[in-house]
Amino acid sequence: MQSEQILNHQYDNGLTLVAQPMPWLASAAFSILLPAGGRYDQAGKHGLANFTCEMVQRGCGELDSRQFIEQLQLLGVDYTSSASNYHTRFGGAMKATELHDTLSVYRDVLRKPHLPESQLEDGRQVCFQEIWATEDDLSRRAIRKLRERFFGDPDGRHADGTIESITGIGQQDIEDFWKRYYQPAGTIIAVAGGIDFEALKAHVGQLFDDWQPNPVEPIESSGEVHGPFHIPFESEQTQIALAWPGVAYSHPDFYKHRAAIGVLSDGMSSRLFHEVREKRGLCYSVFASAVSVGDRGAVIAHSGTSAARAQETLDVLVQELSKISEGVREDELSRLKVQFRSGMIMQQESCRSRAGSIASDWDRLGRVRTLKEITDIITGLDVESINEHVASCPPQNFDLVTLGNAPLEMKNGIPTTSA
Amino acid sequence: MQSEQILNHQYDNGLTLVAQPMPWLASAAFSILLPAGGRYDQAGKHGLANFTCEMVQRGCGELDSRQFIEQLQLLGVDYTSSASNYHTRFGGAMKATELHDTLSVYRDVLRKPHLPESQLEDGRQVCFQEIWATEDDLSRRAIRKLRERFFGDPDGRHADGTIESITGIGQQDIEDFWKRYYQPAGTIIAVAGGIDFEALKAHVGQLFDDWQPNPVEPIESSGEVHGPFHIPFESEQTQIALAWPGVAYSHPDFYKHRAAIGVLSDGMSSRLFHEVREKRGLCYSVFASAVSVGDRGAVIAHSGTSAARAQETLDVLVQELSKISEGVREDELSRLKVQFRSGMIMQQESCRSRAGSIASDWDRLGRVRTLKEITDIITGLDVESINEHVASCPPQNFDLVTLGNAPLEMKNGIPTTSA
Repeated sequence: MQSEQILNHQYDNGLTLVAQPMPWLASAAFSILLPAGGRYDQAGKHGLANFTCEMVQRGCGELDSRQFIEQLQLLGVDYTSSASNYHTRFGGAMKATELHDTLSVYRDVLRKPHLPESQLEDGRQVCFQEIWATEDDLSRRAIRKLRERFFGDPDGRHADGTIESITGIGQQDIEDFWKRYYQPAGTIIAVAGGIDFEALKAHVGQLFDDWQPNPVEPIESSGEVHGPFHIPFESEQTQIALAWPGVAYSHPDFYKHRAAIGVLSDGMSSRLFHEVREKRGLCYSVFASAVSVGDRGAVIAHSGTSAARAQETLDVLVQELSKISEGVREDELSRLKVQFRSGMIMQQESCRSRAGSIASDWDRLGRVRTLKEITDIITGLDVESINEHVASCPPQNFDLVTLGNAPLEMKNGIPTTSA
Repeated sequence: MQSEQILNHQYDNGLTLVAQPMPWLASAAFSILLPAGGRYDQAGKHGLANFTCEMVQRGCGELDSRQFIEQLQLLGVDYTSSASNYHTRFGGAMKATELHDTLSVYRDVLRKPHLPESQLEDGRQVCFQEIWATEDDLSRRAIRKLRERFFGDPDGRHADGTIESITGIGQQDIEDFWKRYYQPAGTIIAVAGGIDFEALKAHVGQLFDDWQPNPVEPIESSGEVHGPFHIPFESEQTQIALAWPGVAYSHPDFYKHRAAIGVLSDGMSSRLFHEVREKRGLCYSVFASAVSVGDRGAVIAHSGTSAARAQETLDVLVQELSKISEGVREDELSRLKVQFRSGMIMQQESCRSRAGSIASDWDRLGRVRTLKEITDIITGLDVESINEHVASCPPQNFDLVTLGNAPLEMKNGIPTTSA
């Protein structure tokens, strides 16, 4: 493996710069995480963080809406933005030589957006379209509903909001949200690629060190609803989404937990893929994944299957998931280790992947796990400690959301209520 | 830019090895293109190539179905397979040190598959599930129907087949398809990453040089249907798919054509994104892309929008598309050039991306366009030659497929017929 150097600098206003030089690359990537996600939306105005994220990109500093986009294209930036539960994120990849100029543009996005009222309705339409697109994506719909119920509010809240809540958002709401939440305390700028850290540190300092902090307060989640839930929908397919409590990324046992989920779901020799898809041909898609919201962990499993085979799919899925508490096998773990390590090698070659990971690590851990460190943790895993872990928190008390023609029945007999 | 070396070797049986050493990488990727796509399916047995592709991966050589998957996981291979119109493709990425062993496994996939009859029904279910999944993906459904009509059969045929055609496929069909079409003439093995070409050439020779060729005959397409078509479907969203004749990848004018499509659709300052999504907030997704099937070119444009704004979206879309025949502007071209070049830099850093591109180039051109060569072509483009090109083949006579609650009306007054 290439050696990994992680460098960081904390500015006085609470902004953190964290970077990984990858000197063999001609490209660079950045990821800016602002603690300005949908969880901070006011009651009745869900979707505000996302709407604000849309509006700050419609002109900033010296650039109007059109010039802003053209400027990024002239810099050759492949850029993205999104609002999640905790964060608003701006990211991009470009020639390493254009990194500083690109960050200068993003200084203005964060600090000097025009928030043009004349474009408010256009921005609102974009938010509507995102919501409609999800309405038509049935697996996402089922999983979103499951997260809402499992995590309560705001932890289970999706940043898109609803047609009703977006309709109720006005210009003043956008301006207020931006003023309150676009600030440096807890904000992370992560950069990876062909960079010079000292020059970058000075440049980021120049752009941001007079930005006034206004730290956000933690918000407790409440209102979890457990048990089964059905969303009636005419379709050839039935969507099945299951959740149960898991271990968060920041927890010391995370990689034991992650390995057990890996045996269930990573790759085509995984239990779910093999048993549910290949051997029984029950579905096209099946997976389980470890999810963290702040310091709360969960496992979410999903399968999209034909209506006719949906009950059988649910039965087999629950059976396979439950069986993991009996432990994983040596051969499963060996294969998984190879797969993890192979994945690491590919990740360490991509600056986009690294910028995203170091931002997210810094946010969750206050430090970065290098790929070397993760590789060592994985190499050190053994069947005994994983099995001890899974026996202590077996998958059970599944929360279920189904979407399709008819509700399904959980084997343990809990009745499925309708929406 | 890193220097690019493209190496190739043609074996006596018609198999081609083409490779790009990327010595700074610890990973490698391969892409095997077999001329065994869905266009070669027998009448009434559409989906046979795809079903065969599923079955050859259920045990081969010394490995049964389960061992095959485990072996790939032990090698740390992230692998994929698919059938398209022209090809069945197998690809993967892994540690460069595992490349030879991985190719040895794929020798058996291609040459010694078990095609176990006991798993035929499981394989059939997987094919069904793929079809059902597309049924629920409304944009893909609309675009598939458009391709069927625009290109006729087999050029417009999707490799998935239908529930009916998959139901009619038997064990003998799979065996016959494999025997006839899994052969070396016209097959391409493309490799990129941390490789030693001479050793690779010898290894591939050992694996494949006694494989008997059985070249496929070209098939002419026929049965194109033009004009508008509506698929009734209850949804909040309406899918709009448009096609018109374009220029194929192998054509000398391709990059002029591609640049015009880029001005329309590449990135957020593109005309479609700006005019249709940002300025008017009409839709969440809109794009136009250059499509090649063999030596036939087309442009396919798509927008997913709310039912209420669908007619307006279609009107604006057609207007923006038509306007390209008046030419592109200097500033649009300059930005596009930067964007293309920036994209090249990122591509040249990924062995997966390179393996895929060199396979596809070899297939379409009988040679590889290096990124340097493409960069030079793009740098040499000027507004005059692009505008001459677009004036000579303006977007017109659009073929339209809509999917949603109600048909839409083309401004030129051609009535929309229902499915």
